[in-house]
Amino acid sequence: MRVAEGSQRNEQPPNAKIVNTNRQLVLHSRPTGLLAPGDLQLAEAPLPSLTDGQALARVKYLSIDPTMRIWMARVSYLPAVAIGEVMRAFGFAEVVESRHKDFKKGDKVVGLTGLQNYCVIDAADKHGMFQKVPPIPFLSDTAFLGVLGINGLTAYFGMMDIAKPQKGETLLVSAAAGATGSIAGQIGKIHGCRVVGIAGGPEKCKWITEGLGFDAAVDYKSPDWKEKLAAATPKGIDINFENVGGEIMHAVFERMNLHGRVVLCGLISGYTKGDPALASLEMVLVKRLRVEGFIVIDYMDRTMEAATQLGKWKMFGKLKDRETIVEGLEKAPDAINMLFTGGNIGKLIVKV
Amino acid sequence: MRVAEGSQRNEQPPNAKIVNTNRQLVLHSRPTGLLAPGDLQLAEAPLPSLTDGQALARVKYLSIDPTMRIWMARVSYLPAVAIGEVMRAFGFAEVVESRHKDFKKGDKVVGLTGLQNYCVIDAADKHGMFQKVPPIPFLSDTAFLGVLGINGLTAYFGMMDIAKPQKGETLLVSAAAGATGSIAGQIGKIHGCRVVGIAGGPEKCKWITEGLGFDAAVDYKSPDWKEKLAAATPKGIDINFENVGGEIMHAVFERMNLHGRVVLCGLISGYTKGDPALASLEMVLVKRLRVEGFIVIDYMDRTMEAATQLGKWKMFGKLKDRETIVEGLEKAPDAINMLFTGGNIGKLIVKV
Repeated sequence: MRVAEGSQRNEQPPNAKIVNTNRQLVLHSRPTGLLAPGDLQLAEAPLPSLTDGQALARVKYLSIDPTMRIWMARVSYLPAVAIGEVMRAFGFAEVVESRHKDFKKGDKVVGLTGLQNYCVIDAADKHGMFQKVPPIPFLSDTAFLGVLGINGLTAYFGMMDIAKPQKGETLLVSAAAGATGSIAGQIGKIHGCRVVGIAGGPEKCKWITEGLGFDAAVDYKSPDWKEKLAAATPKGIDINFENVGGEIMHAVFERMNLHGRVVLCGLISGYTKGDPALASLEMVLVKRLRVEGFIVIDYMDRTMEAATQLGKWKMFGKLKDRETIVEGLEKAPDAINMLFTGGNIGKLIVKV
Repeated sequence: MRVAEGSQRNEQPPNAKIVNTNRQLVLHSRPTGLLAPGDLQLAEAPLPSLTDGQALARVKYLSIDPTMRIWMARVSYLPAVAIGEVMRAFGFAEVVESRHKDFKKGDKVVGLTGLQNYCVIDAADKHGMFQKVPPIPFLSDTAFLGVLGINGLTAYFGMMDIAKPQKGETLLVSAAAGATGSIAGQIGKIHGCRVVGIAGGPEKCKWITEGLGFDAAVDYKSPDWKEKLAAATPKGIDINFENVGGEIMHAVFERMNLHGRVVLCGLISGYTKGDPALASLEMVLVKRLRVEGFIVIDYMDRTMEAATQLGKWKMFGKLKDRETIVEGLEKAPDAINMLFTGGNIGKLIVKV
C-alpha cells in the first residue's frame, strides 16, 4: 500500500502497512445557511479491525455534491446524517485489506465512503453503493466520481429517461458549468438539440460555449440576463434540465413552450435557505413525483369519448353530481367569488 | 322562442320574437383579490344583426369556474379578457336564429358564450368552442356544463390520461366537493382506488363520503386536519388530483409516496393573491409542463449502461469534463460551501 498523500503525509508513518488512525469529518451541528466552521469537525478514530464480509479501503478522492448540504440538514431521499456520524459523501477508494468475497486488495471502488481517510465496505450493508471500477487507460480515477460517476449518471438518465431529447429542440440547462449540468448539455448536443446554459460569470460561460460547444451561455450575474435568455431561446425552451430553482427557474419557466419537459434534478438555490416557496418543489424532487400541468382544452377533440363514458357511468349510478345554481346574470360576479370563499358545493351555475 | 326567465323577466316584452337588447357583464377593472363591486359591470348592447355564417343563441345557464378569475387578471393558456370586453365564460345556450350551416334554430349548444343574455356563434371564430349537445332524456341542460361538460372532461382526462389510476392505489383529491374534484374522486372509485377528499366544512365532507362514496373526507377547517389526513392515508398517497395549491398541496405532498403522480389541475388558493411562491407552479399548469423529480440512485442497477455510453462519448471526444480539485480532507467543509457560492467549475473533488 501507499502512504497517504498530500496534507495527510505528515501525520502518517512512512512505510507502515496500515496507519492506525482514521481522520474523519463528523457532523457536529446542522447548518442553517452556508456551512459554519465547526458544523463538520475533524476527529480521529482507530482503524476498525475487519470481520468476515468486510473490506477496508483507503479513500483517495471525495466527490463534493450539493445534495450533501441536504443530507446535513434534514431527511430527504436518504436519512439525514446523524449528529456525531461521519459525514456522508461519495468517494473513490482503494482496497487495502479484505475479508469480503467481492473485493480484493488493490481493487478500486466508488461508493459512499464518507468524509474520511479509510472506510469499511461491508457485505451486510447495501447502502454504501460500492462498485468496483474497471481499469480504463484513458480515464483518470476522478472520472469515476464525475463524468462516469454520480454526475454522469445523473445527466445520462435525466436526459435519456426523462427529457428524451429530440433533434431540433431547445434544451436549457441551469448550473450549466457544474458537474452535472455540463454533461447534460453535451448529451443534448449529441442528440441534436440547441443547447443554452445559464451560469455565473464569464469564465464559466466561456467554458460551456467554447469548451463544450453549447450554442449559447447566459450569465445570470449580468443585469440584463433575462433579456439575454429570451434572445438565446428564440423558439422558446422545450426541455429544462433544472438544477437551481428559485428566480432562475422562474425565468426559464416563462420561456418554456407548451407541453415542455422539466427534469427537476436539483434546487440548489434553496438548499442553504429555509425558503418555504421551494419546500413543495423539493418534495417533488425528493419523492420523484411526476407533476403535469393540465388544461382540458387540449382534449376538446376527444369530447365525445369522455362524454360517452361519463354519461354511461352517470346512467348506471356510478357518478353523481350536485349543483349550486345562482339566479340572474347580474349575480355572476358574486358567484365567481363564491368559488374562492368556499360558498358552493359541486358545480356552480348561473341561471340567466 | 321562450321569454327570458327569472330576474330578466321584467325587462323583456312578453311574446316578443327576440328582445332587442343584450345584457352583458363587461370587464371594467382587473381584480386584485376577490372581485370587487364594479370589476364586472352590467351593460346593455343592442342585439347584433347576423351575417352569413353566424347564429344567435340565447344563454340559459352560465358555468362559473375558478379559471375565470385568472382570465380577468392576466394572460394564461388563453389571452386575458380585455378591459371593456364581455367577460368570458362557458355557458349553455339555445339557438334562436341562424345563418350558420352547422346550427339551426332550437339547437342546444355549450361553448364560450360569455356572461351575457345572447351570444353570437360565428363560423369564422374557432375560439368559441361551441358544440351541439344531444337531447338525452336523463340529463338536465346543466349537466352539459358540469358532469358532462367542462368539469367532467377535466376530471376524465386528468384521471385517465395523466393519473392512470390503478386498483388499490390511494387517490387524494383537493377541493373534493367542487365540480371537478367530486367527479375525479368518483372516477378513482370506479377504478378501485381508495379515495380521500379534502374539503371545507362538514356539509361538503358528508356529501363526498355519504353521497359520493369517497372512503374518507378531511375537513381542512378542522385544526388537526393534517393529522386526519395522515390517518386517512395510512399507505400514503399515490395520486394527487390537485386543485388548490398552497398549504394544502404542501401537506398532501408530504404524504405522497415515491414516484407518485400529481395531476396539477388547479391552484385556486393562489388565484386571488399575488403569491410569488405559486407563480412558477402556475406556469407548470398554464404551459402543461411535465415536471418529474429525479434522483439518480433509482438507476443504480443501470450504471453499466450509462457508463458504457458516457465512456464511448468521452473516448470519441463528444463529452468533455473539467474538475476543480481541493486538497485535504479538512478542506471538505469549505468545498461544500463553494457549490453554493459558485466557486467551482465542473466537478468538485476533494483529494484526500
